Amino acid sequence: MNYRMHIFVTGKVMVILGALMAIPIVAGIWYREMDNVLVYIITAVSSIAIGFLLSLKKPSNTKIFLKDSCVITAVSWIVMSLVGCIPFMLTGEIPDFTNAVFETVSGFTTTGASILTNVEGMSHISLMWRSLTHWIGGMGVIVFLLAVVPMAGGTNLNLMKAESPGPSVGKLVPKVRSTAKALYLIYLALTVLEIVVLLCCRMPLFDSICSAFGTAGTGGFGIKNDSFASYSPAIQWVVTVFMVLFGVNFNFYYLIISKQIAKSFKMEEVKIYLLIIVSAIGVIAINIHKMYDGVMETIRHASFQVATVITTTGYATEDFDNWPSLSKCILVILMFVGACAGSTGGGMKVVRLIIRVKSFAREVAGYIHPNSIKTIHLDGKPADNDMVRSVSTFYFAYLMIFTASLILVSIESHDLVTNFTAVAATINNIGPGLALVGPTSNYSFFGILSKWTLIFDMLAGRLELFPLIIFLYPGTYKSSLRSRFSKRIR
Amino acid sequence: MNYRMHIFVTGKVMVILGALMAIPIVAGIWYREMDNVLVYIITAVSSIAIGFLLSLKKPSNTKIFLKDSCVITAVSWIVMSLVGCIPFMLTGEIPDFTNAVFETVSGFTTTGASILTNVEGMSHISLMWRSLTHWIGGMGVIVFLLAVVPMAGGTNLNLMKAESPGPSVGKLVPKVRSTAKALYLIYLALTVLEIVVLLCCRMPLFDSICSAFGTAGTGGFGIKNDSFASYSPAIQWVVTVFMVLFGVNFNFYYLIISKQIAKSFKMEEVKIYLLIIVSAIGVIAINIHKMYDGVMETIRHASFQVATVITTTGYATEDFDNWPSLSKCILVILMFVGACAGSTGGGMKVVRLIIRVKSFAREVAGYIHPNSIKTIHLDGKPADNDMVRSVSTFYFAYLMIFTASLILVSIESHDLVTNFTAVAATINNIGPGLALVGPTSNYSFFGILSKWTLIFDMLAGRLELFPLIIFLYPGTYKSSLRSRFSKRIR
Repeated sequence: MNYRMHIFVTGKVMVILGALMAIPIVAGIWYREMDNVLVYIITAVSSIAIGFLLSLKKPSNTKIFLKDSCVITAVSWIVMSLVGCIPFMLTGEIPDFTNAVFETVSGFTTTGASILTNVEGMSHISLMWRSLTHWIGGMGVIVFLLAVVPMAGGTNLNLMKAESPGPSVGKLVPKVRSTAKALYLIYLALTVLEIVVLLCCRMPLFDSICSAFGTAGTGGFGIKNDSFASYSPAIQWVVTVFMVLFGVNFNFYYLIISKQIAKSFKMEEVKIYLLIIVSAIGVIAINIHKMYDGVMETIRHASFQVATVITTTGYATEDFDNWPSLSKCILVILMFVGACAGSTGGGMKVVRLIIRVKSFAREVAGYIHPNSIKTIHLDGKPADNDMVRSVSTFYFAYLMIFTASLILVSIESHDLVTNFTAVAATINNIGPGLALVGPTSNYSFFGILSKWTLIFDMLAGRLELFPLIIFLYPGTYKSSLRSRFSKRIR
Repeated sequence: MNYRMHIFVTGKVMVILGALMAIPIVAGIWYREMDNVLVYIITAVSSIAIGFLLSLKKPSNTKIFLKDSCVITAVSWIVMSLVGCIPFMLTGEIPDFTNAVFETVSGFTTTGASILTNVEGMSHISLMWRSLTHWIGGMGVIVFLLAVVPMAGGTNLNLMKAESPGPSVGKLVPKVRSTAKALYLIYLALTVLEIVVLLCCRMPLFDSICSAFGTAGTGGFGIKNDSFASYSPAIQWVVTVFMVLFGVNFNFYYLIISKQIAKSFKMEEVKIYLLIIVSAIGVIAINIHKMYDGVMETIRHASFQVATVITTTGYATEDFDNWPSLSKCILVILMFVGACAGSTGGGMKVVRLIIRVKSFAREVAGYIHPNSIKTIHLDGKPADNDMVRSVSTFYFAYLMIFTASLILVSIESHDLVTNFTAVAATINNIGPGLALVGPTSNYSFFGILSKWTLIFDMLAGRLELFPLIIFLYPGTYKSSLRSRFSKRIR
């Protein structure tokens, strides 16, 4: 293990985090929330100072193995969450440690599950910070780091792999740094575009920025108690469209801006993703049409809720807990499907579903023609066998973590739907579930064990399980000690 | 496709089914239910006659490919269900066709989900036939066929593979026929043993036979409206132990009677199966102890319910729908775990879980030592890679069928817990679920679409998905037409 590199990256992450706090600080000064501004400035300066000291000396060995990158990513995210929750506690807005960590992890992992019962009672600076955590966590702080800090060595791809969603990380361009830059530029451009469009729809500037941060990271923290229910239909439509856009694999946008239009339209994942969205909206609209006046209102609510769930954002315009079973069932299924790989969305990702369906088809073909050897193709290219296997393991690991969490959360004796959807909504980074954790409720009533279980699930879901599993697995460190030891003997 | 062989096997199955109706007929004569006896005799004789005609000419080509065996198995089970439901309809006890098929499929697939609201109102002959269907379906009618009918050709193993539960069929002895015979002898011996022990516990003979049939097949049809709640604690304990015994991989018993004790105790699946049972009983007993008087009563109810769910039998002594969330959650998880492969139990089977956990461990090791190649071992022997892959596909196919069924059943707008556990309880061949399909309820309230969906799930679960998928997949027949066609062209 390259521990020096671990410390270096963690330090850099703290510097970046501190620097990004400038954004809510500006908002705080604007709204003259000076007490809170002071808290944020102290936190930011401390984080930058400690981070600077930690990353003062660049390690000579910049080699990062896959297990290093998993541990680095896990540690960075834990440090981020601990630093990020300090202002909530110091301002007294979320005094309890568990609650503050829950809210911050929910922010960075773009879950959007809140323990706040009255969001509108928060200060502007904290609301802005809360929404900004979504934006930071959406594309990932390590990807940001790779984009802005020159790091020698060809193993940075491992770092990106560990943080980015999806079974395989396509480098857009040969250099990791340029890929990271391209991703963040697209991300920034789309976010700014959304802010502008929302302003055109007469949404106030503060609301527009916070909403855009939440949409871009597919997070879901709202700044109103009723999420998006009281905004105009125009605003709801804009947010719907942008949620869907941020759930698309960013490779798609890169291909478009680099004028490889034909190639971009070949991306199976994007096509299937859109197909699922349209089908789900269709079925739900038919199922709920009696509850609303007119076709447009029905389609607007169906579209918003489908987009919010499949992209794992978690905004709401309607309490879908009151919808009929079929609609609820489809929304719960979409929670697991998730958005595209390489997007800011969570869930299991559409591409994994595609790979599993193709593996299944291969298996069926094997029953009919036992001697046929079929390779799985994706976007016209043969898929790597290792990837196919790792996708199947991913599904299983997901199931195991899900099941274990469900047992732990069940100890509190809430109803099964609450427990099931609370775990589903956190591990898939969505936010609202059904019953007691429905769109009009929050997570404050859970006990301490359930809250920490759900915190773990949010992190596991955002980092796609393996970084956290490798970080917690004792063997990760053992072998390195052993090899050091055996070196010494020699 | 070897269609002549399909017809031959189907014919034989009909003959066997007709012959086995002799057992309820004897019961019917004993209880002087002469009108019903006549119905059963007519059905039996017709089935034997038609079956005899169909299997009159033994095909010269006895080669059975894997896809043939899948189609043969699927067709046989469908024919069995259609023949088996005739007496229910003709006696007027279940006049509706859908309901009669539901009850019969539930019997043969050893599910035990009933549409009857008053079981005690049934005639003895029909109760006996209902329980006997569990016994026939438990070990499988085709395995029975292989045991009693001499079939030339070395491809009969494919037939056994298609009907027997588990990812791989271990031939106990080199000859398929001897393996099938050994399985049925163990099955019969254990069943008789249970009848004798139940008689010793002062259970009436009729009740003992029916209960033993239900336990042996891990079916779950009771002959009392309250299932096993009103029987004595001694009887409840006997049934608990036998349910667990019938959920054990039958290879275990074969190894014991052939004096390979050491080898039998090496079977990981059996060890993990018992470990899961003991752990589940422990946790549930602690969770429910306040609801009962004394430790023994608590443990008895916990043990019975754990055994009934993990072996997918479906008897009940208590309405576990009233138990706290943690216990309900564990029972729902056990529904999916299922019993051992090569037993009469349903569910996903313990061995598949073991293989998936080991695949997962291999994947984690790959993160830490990227160049390590690890083979998965089972019972000390390296596991076949094809089997490992097929297990992962099985999980996915399960998930897909489960999800599709959930959507179809949700159209009726019952609550999510009812829909979820109804599908879980049928695809895993258990019987009772939670909420509206809890242990004290039945499936009669479902509409026709839901009932047929659940009928499909029961068959898919019992045959472990693939035979039914291959049977329904158009490509299965196309390729054979094409190859015939291309032969003609040449």
